[in-house]
Amino acid sequence: MLFICVTYIAYKIKMINIADKLINNIIKTKNPTVVGLDPDLSKIPLCYLKGNFEGNKLEKVAGAIYEYNKDIIDTVFEYVPAVKPQMAFYEKYGSFGVRAFEKTVKYALEKGLVVIEDGKRNDIGNTALAYAKGHLGKVETLDNELIESFNVDFLTISPFLGSESLEPFINECVKSNKGVFILVKTSNKSAGEIQDVVMNNEKTVSENLACYVNDKANCFYGEYGYSSIGAVVGATYPEDAKALRKLMPRSFFLVPGYGVQGGSALDIVACFNSDGLGAIVNSSRGILYSHLSKYEKENITKREYLQKVLKETKKMQKDIYACLLENCKDILY
Amino acid sequence: MLFICVTYIAYKIKMINIADKLINNIIKTKNPTVVGLDPDLSKIPLCYLKGNFEGNKLEKVAGAIYEYNKDIIDTVFEYVPAVKPQMAFYEKYGSFGVRAFEKTVKYALEKGLVVIEDGKRNDIGNTALAYAKGHLGKVETLDNELIESFNVDFLTISPFLGSESLEPFINECVKSNKGVFILVKTSNKSAGEIQDVVMNNEKTVSENLACYVNDKANCFYGEYGYSSIGAVVGATYPEDAKALRKLMPRSFFLVPGYGVQGGSALDIVACFNSDGLGAIVNSSRGILYSHLSKYEKENITKREYLQKVLKETKKMQKDIYACLLENCKDILY
Repeated sequence: MLFICVTYIAYKIKMINIADKLINNIIKTKNPTVVGLDPDLSKIPLCYLKGNFEGNKLEKVAGAIYEYNKDIIDTVFEYVPAVKPQMAFYEKYGSFGVRAFEKTVKYALEKGLVVIEDGKRNDIGNTALAYAKGHLGKVETLDNELIESFNVDFLTISPFLGSESLEPFINECVKSNKGVFILVKTSNKSAGEIQDVVMNNEKTVSENLACYVNDKANCFYGEYGYSSIGAVVGATYPEDAKALRKLMPRSFFLVPGYGVQGGSALDIVACFNSDGLGAIVNSSRGILYSHLSKYEKENITKREYLQKVLKETKKMQKDIYACLLENCKDILY
Repeated sequence: MLFICVTYIAYKIKMINIADKLINNIIKTKNPTVVGLDPDLSKIPLCYLKGNFEGNKLEKVAGAIYEYNKDIIDTVFEYVPAVKPQMAFYEKYGSFGVRAFEKTVKYALEKGLVVIEDGKRNDIGNTALAYAKGHLGKVETLDNELIESFNVDFLTISPFLGSESLEPFINECVKSNKGVFILVKTSNKSAGEIQDVVMNNEKTVSENLACYVNDKANCFYGEYGYSSIGAVVGATYPEDAKALRKLMPRSFFLVPGYGVQGGSALDIVACFNSDGLGAIVNSSRGILYSHLSKYEKENITKREYLQKVLKETKKMQKDIYACLLENCKDILY
């Protein structure tokens, strides 16, 4: 069996979508990057962990995480189009951590940022639908009302269970005007173990997934011609990114692997279309932590730290934007 | 690149592990099945949704879910070895839903049940470690204490990102004496799109994953000879299950697809070893919902409902145990 790569039989729908919100933010900030919000207690400066937080032990951790995130958001929201909280770093602390995630999402949305939840959720049928409704759509209450739960703009999803595991999310995106990034080619070393396997049609698993994404993306796209059905494509395999870019012209790529993981600004050019759109490059550790010495981690003030975060945020924008100006002949911004 | 299928170079460790807890419970109940705790408001009898629950709208839903789960656990705990809460049905309701999940896990553990969290988590490096610590291990507090967060016995994990996405979980299992079920061949229709693809070594993705699981399982096994590194293998592909059983003799299979999804008691025999161990068969909808007519859903009392749940639980045990007695020549219980 193959990931069926056919032209989707449905009329194509063009309407303002969540990719348009992302693009408007990119144009406004001249910045196709996203700051990863990965709160890691072993890396967050000590000044953020010393406050008087209420509640039990896990509640206190969640309190510190939210205060930290709020400061990061306040620092970067005028300079970046989006933030990407990685659910693992919240869920780790149970329901209190998830509460900190919810508050972070709400705060980032209030600041006008696009929120991309990195959750890599995957399941089938009703179970996938439960994830889709909870993260992207609305859920029912005991009084049969429908209300928002997590309410993120985009969610990353993982395709190991096949197309049945993707469709409930895609349908929910159309219904709730939200988006997904489907894992197509990830940035890590062992990514190729499954993703590079060549299928019967002589295309790799990643390429077949790309065809699938493109079929869906072709049905639902927005004002700028981009779909809310995107793909995760790592910066660390630029040759693959180039090929995948051609297979998914209407899809945004969420691009991990820049900076700390080894991808350069030039590597990530392959992820963009000639209009300078079609990709949003993530940096988490590079913006938040890797510029801190051990001494700084323990002694830096919040004010000094946030200045460093802002400096790294602007540096990333400058590097990538300069590279796009040079390489994208039809750049829109 | 391939999922490397080599003999793991490490000394083999035999010690009491979480698979032993599972096996002891199976022997005690003569029942290798697990009741899925998938609270779905559209299917739960109305009598459970009419209580006076405290808090905001999502908190009220979470209150109803926990009360429902508690009754199910009280009804089945003497007859089944384990329960399998599906995280999607809790997470759907945000942090309040996750709180209901935590309370359900705690209650089930107190009743002596093995708790298998169906979360299908997947990520790499530090992020995978954050999931592993949060669900299976211990997490740090602001005072540098280490405390348990979710504290489930087993977690399902998904391998699309390759071996790097599995190792942090496996290491955590060894460290914290917990277990995982790695998705190898799932029960759904589109499972084969990626899982049946034939790799360079002429084995399918599933078979290569099975070799990987077996290498890990061979390093860490318990008193009964079974490892805490298990696999998800669906009941709906019995021929595949038979082949995978041979490739992973030391691993427990978590078997979805029985009953409502179409797998029969005879189909699932292929998932067991001749000792009648090595598999635990899940039923969620079959036990909880599919026996209810629309009229019953709206009018049944809690007492009547729980009698039906118990009847279905016993029926499943009887069907599967009879089939194992007939087909497993060395059955241990």
